[in-house]
Amino acid sequence: MQTRIEVGILGATGMVGQHFIRFLQGHPWFHLKWLGASDRSAGKKYADAMTWHLAGTTPDAVANLTVEDCKPGNAPRLLFSAMDASVATEIERAFAEAGHVVVSNSRNHRMERDVPLLVPEINPDHLKLVPMQQRLRGWKGQIVTNPNCSTVVLTMGLAPLKPFGITRVIATTMQAISGAGYPGVPSMDIVGNVVPFIGGEEEKMEQETQKILGEFCGDHVEPLPARVSAHCNRVPVVDGHTVTVSVELSLKPSEADLRRAFDTFTGVPQQRQLPSAPLRPVIYMEQANRPQPRKDAERERGMAAFIGRLRPCPALDYKFVALGHNTVRGAAGAAVLNAELMHSEGMLD
Amino acid sequence: MQTRIEVGILGATGMVGQHFIRFLQGHPWFHLKWLGASDRSAGKKYADAMTWHLAGTTPDAVANLTVEDCKPGNAPRLLFSAMDASVATEIERAFAEAGHVVVSNSRNHRMERDVPLLVPEINPDHLKLVPMQQRLRGWKGQIVTNPNCSTVVLTMGLAPLKPFGITRVIATTMQAISGAGYPGVPSMDIVGNVVPFIGGEEEKMEQETQKILGEFCGDHVEPLPARVSAHCNRVPVVDGHTVTVSVELSLKPSEADLRRAFDTFTGVPQQRQLPSAPLRPVIYMEQANRPQPRKDAERERGMAAFIGRLRPCPALDYKFVALGHNTVRGAAGAAVLNAELMHSEGMLD
Amino acid sequence: MQTRIEVGILGATGMVGQHFIRFLQGHPWFHLKWLGASDRSAGKKYADAMTWHLAGTTPDAVANLTVEDCKPGNAPRLLFSAMDASVATEIERAFAEAGHVVVSNSRNHRMERDVPLLVPEINPDHLKLVPMQQRLRGWKGQIVTNPNCSTVVLTMGLAPLKPFGITRVIATTMQAISGAGYPGVPSMDIVGNVVPFIGGEEEKMEQETQKILGEFCGDHVEPLPARVSAHCNRVPVVDGHTVTVSVELSLKPSEADLRRAFDTFTGVPQQRQLPSAPLRPVIYMEQANRPQPRKDAERERGMAAFIGRLRPCPALDYKFVALGHNTVRGAAGAAVLNAELMHSEGMLD
Amino acid sequence: MQTRIEVGILGATGMVGQHFIRFLQGHPWFHLKWLGASDRSAGKKYADAMTWHLAGTTPDAVANLTVEDCKPGNAPRLLFSAMDASVATEIERAFAEAGHVVVSNSRNHRMERDVPLLVPEINPDHLKLVPMQQRLRGWKGQIVTNPNCSTVVLTMGLAPLKPFGITRVIATTMQAISGAGYPGVPSMDIVGNVVPFIGGEEEKMEQETQKILGEFCGDHVEPLPARVSAHCNRVPVVDGHTVTVSVELSLKPSEADLRRAFDTFTGVPQQRQLPSAPLRPVIYMEQANRPQPRKDAERERGMAAFIGRLRPCPALDYKFVALGHNTVRGAAGAAVLNAELMHSEGMLD
Repeated sequence: MQTRIEVGILGATGMVGQHFIRFLQGHPWFHLKWLGASDRSAGKKYADAMTWHLAGTTPDAVANLTVEDCKPGNAPRLLFSAMDASVATEIERAFAEAGHVVVSNSRNHRMERDVPLLVPEINPDHLKLVPMQQRLRGWKGQIVTNPNCSTVVLTMGLAPLKPFGITRVIATTMQAISGAGYPGVPSMDIVGNVVPFIGGEEEKMEQETQKILGEFCGDHVEPLPARVSAHCNRVPVVDGHTVTVSVELSLKPSEADLRRAFDTFTGVPQQRQLPSAPLRPVIYMEQANRPQPRKDAERERGMAAFIGRLRPCPALDYKFVALGHNTVRGAAGAAVLNAELMHSEGMLD
Repeated sequence: MQTRIEVGILGATGMVGQHFIRFLQGHPWFHLKWLGASDRSAGKKYADAMTWHLAGTTPDAVANLTVEDCKPGNAPRLLFSAMDASVATEIERAFAEAGHVVVSNSRNHRMERDVPLLVPEINPDHLKLVPMQQRLRGWKGQIVTNPNCSTVVLTMGLAPLKPFGITRVIATTMQAISGAGYPGVPSMDIVGNVVPFIGGEEEKMEQETQKILGEFCGDHVEPLPARVSAHCNRVPVVDGHTVTVSVELSLKPSEADLRRAFDTFTGVPQQRQLPSAPLRPVIYMEQANRPQPRKDAERERGMAAFIGRLRPCPALDYKFVALGHNTVRGAAGAAVLNAELMHSEGMLD
Repeated sequence: MQTRIEVGILGATGMVGQHFIRFLQGHPWFHLKWLGASDRSAGKKYADAMTWHLAGTTPDAVANLTVEDCKPGNAPRLLFSAMDASVATEIERAFAEAGHVVVSNSRNHRMERDVPLLVPEINPDHLKLVPMQQRLRGWKGQIVTNPNCSTVVLTMGLAPLKPFGITRVIATTMQAISGAGYPGVPSMDIVGNVVPFIGGEEEKMEQETQKILGEFCGDHVEPLPARVSAHCNRVPVVDGHTVTVSVELSLKPSEADLRRAFDTFTGVPQQRQLPSAPLRPVIYMEQANRPQPRKDAERERGMAAFIGRLRPCPALDYKFVALGHNTVRGAAGAAVLNAELMHSEGMLD
Repeated sequence: MQTRIEVGILGATGMVGQHFIRFLQGHPWFHLKWLGASDRSAGKKYADAMTWHLAGTTPDAVANLTVEDCKPGNAPRLLFSAMDASVATEIERAFAEAGHVVVSNSRNHRMERDVPLLVPEINPDHLKLVPMQQRLRGWKGQIVTNPNCSTVVLTMGLAPLKPFGITRVIATTMQAISGAGYPGVPSMDIVGNVVPFIGGEEEKMEQETQKILGEFCGDHVEPLPARVSAHCNRVPVVDGHTVTVSVELSLKPSEADLRRAFDTFTGVPQQRQLPSAPLRPVIYMEQANRPQPRKDAERERGMAAFIGRLRPCPALDYKFVALGHNTVRGAAGAAVLNAELMHSEGMLD
């Protein structure tokens, strides 16, 4: 077996950090060796620095690591960032400036002009922003980001349809509580209830979707010129964001065209058989009442998007349902797949 | 106190029937005296003929009534129908033919050309279809219907906007389990889950909305010429359907225009102070994260629609959230309000 | 109508404070005029000082009251305390010392030797501790407490059985999330889950039960000499604590004896028809699968305890299920009923 | 690789049957080749004969099998029975008479005097009932059963304590909805609710526990002479039964004794490393608020019991919490482990 690349996590004690730890267990390329967190945790054994909120218990190999300050120094070159948005901007920049490859799940840099907002099956060429980023900022390192958890689901549902000319999208999300971290949503707000608002989420979905589906044009990404509207809701589901989508397509394809597009969609991660790539990134389900979060989100290790109920939309052209695992494909798994793509491009050498 | 009008319920043992029983308790105009159900129940005391599925226990006055066959005969003239769609067509017709006023919650006759599909605040003039219905069918009685539970919420949210020229609507519902009756949705399908499909529901919402918001034109209702698209989902909520709505309006009003329209919307039930009419049929909530089903559906005795989050829609013109109580305003309460309107029109004399 | 007694709430902005506000709406004896909270809120209009977490919206009459510091001064003589345990000890004492009648829902003083821990139907004579309390502490005012929310349910289930000689009790609770206040239990911990631990709750149930069912003996309360064991669990229920109870009774009554005891149990609040007293404090339900929190807790305005499934226990003598509304009978309603009892005793004159 | 033993499932289309199918996927010893179901399904492809209710989709290898009638004939010798109790008695007997080894999850034969009610870690010697069963009934085949899903959890929690002389047990369950099969519990009964009754469950837990922990005495099992009392409740949890237990022990061990007993408990399946045996059958969790069904039930492939919160019980001697996966260790996994034990005894040769 080849030597694995040592990696670290910025913001390792929070819930997203825990998702990274779980997802990286047994990873064939990346070896988790370093955990960074706030001053409050630094110096403690990981097991003593946090409460484990995921299923099961803290993996043994990680439980005994000592938590470090989030400052460049002895950290590995490749770092996954699970930092809270309130602190991510400065810390991620400091690491990138110091030469680290920061593969971030935080929202802070996603919409910056020279930062790739990457979904490896959709826009791997957006990685070409990196040299520009390094040049403009004078960095040896770099920041590469993955989208917001609900954006991933929407864009994986839309990407197969891009050839048909997406001009208008209306999406309504029913988002899982795990998307809000820990302690996150108070149970008094969500048990037996729907909360029709998630702060900042709609704006993220609308803008990030345009960037991800946009075209790399030499020195920037030209956003997809589609009108995108999102309604974001929280529902009492543990994992898995469900999204209903109505879409207008300029080329007026047939339903069979769209179905074929879903069924044949594939990308670079599949071609290169990246370790975390699902066999097929988009899986269309025939059953009338699927996909469903509790029954489908965890299939394919949580890395695929599930589509169902494709049918004509009386108001736009077509409508369908999309589902994805928000803490895997929508967070930790997304970032790890980004790093795998970067490694396959030689960017981690 | 004036003598109350005796009323009966067709399909009294099912869950919708139970909602009628509860809603009619203490009604100032209507006195529940007669309960009809299937052969299986006929002849039994009501308390012995069913299991009570609602909160609390069967009201005493009703528990001791004897259940009758659903055949015209000794039934009161005014009947609320809570019948299952599988049997409602023939039985409701038989009663109407025999001279009964059938105020039905069943879907069977809603879309028939000569049957009013009534929301008293929106289209009270659709009652003018009744004389035609009686003439065409040779009936002394009549059938008047209320909409599907999710349609009510959507149309009460749209009605205030009708003056601005509704041309396109995309609605996504998050519907409560009580909408499916009893036993209804198996818990294995919905606990911690979303089911993105409810059989026939989307078609009902799309067509009924056009009819309700349509214009009475002498001898028929001309449907609203808007393109209406519905995405219907079941969520683990007990009572209250939440709907996200994007709408296109030909007159391009300002957001303030729409807000004023919501705030000032009122109708005949309010003017006549019908007993079950809410003080205001549409209540706009300022809070960023409202309305919510568990916190708002039961306000105003479940008879109002709650609106929130009005804002521009990047894909159509505006978007907002609507909420209503599906078993009250969406079923039993809707039918009772219909009967109250009819009484105020002298149609029950 | 007689002049109502002015009352205030200590800790008015928290969730328990909000329950007091809701419960006191329209109270025939008590008029809510004063709201106390922390420095942070003092001086603000109530509506601006908190987020309303209960169903519906803040009652208008209260929304415009100005929040005061929790310091004796212009507060009414009768104060309901909804204070957090971290601050209640000193503040409640300060008010009692200054002559106020503090009717507290906080746990801080419940187990003190000279403080009544009151359930008006069970131990109204424990109010006789008050003169001793005033003498010993040199207070003009006083502190009277109600039990922990799960204790109320258990003791109302046990009180009718006390004449049969309770010697051993094992109770397992399934407690609603509203018992933990706001933000309270994170949804990630409880959606689709059971948490078999609530800090300090088992000790409270065990000790408080012995005190409440104990005998007033001239200058103190002699605890019930029964061995009481509690297992406390949190379940995904919004309101209503369900408790399974096994009990050993020294007099070995028949099942019919016990059933009669439940059916005939009544107390001083019923005899005096106190405004918040349920018609019957303990209601036995015949149905095999009741009581249930979502269907029964809100009956009788949330002020009764519901009992069901009385049957022999192979390990002790009998077993049954008890249910009560934790934020009404288990908190705000309990305290208000305490104050009503005190008023009926002339203690508020 | 050695040839695998061909096996079949009686009652393959129901939810328990589906759990067997899932659990047997990739089994190293058993090869699922035969599916039996009712007349209605016989002759159809499995995929067409049922709706798959578990997570994911029907395993491909099974989807294409043809469903057979539940009659002896071409069925493999080893059959797992997932039959509904309403039909299991006759059908299981017919197969056993015809020479089949019926390893049954159904309750029908569990309490028969000559039928082993087996938990391989607890009472493997109860298999000695089989020769007597065959002699008495004149069967070449046999019936071996596993306990009710809640009984397994309780007995695995009690087995380590058996050496200390169990004399009294009071257990309260909080049972997952998956234990009721499909459609099972209506969502209107359980969302946001507790149902304090499961028909027949308490009797099963009380009697089965005594038999499982009883002693094989030459020609029968002498039940454990302990007084066992169960309170059974349904809660809105998908998988995993949680049980609170109070226990009286005649030898009055220390808490440390019990803790050691939990930590060191092991059995024949572990010694023989049976394929479905968990590394340790009973896992004690130190955390104050564990085990929890959503976080722990699926660990160890759902085959271990998790114990926590051991502490003195004021009413009996000790109390603790036990948790197990009801459809794995409590059903399909239990039966498969039984068959593995039987194979390791040479009973399938």
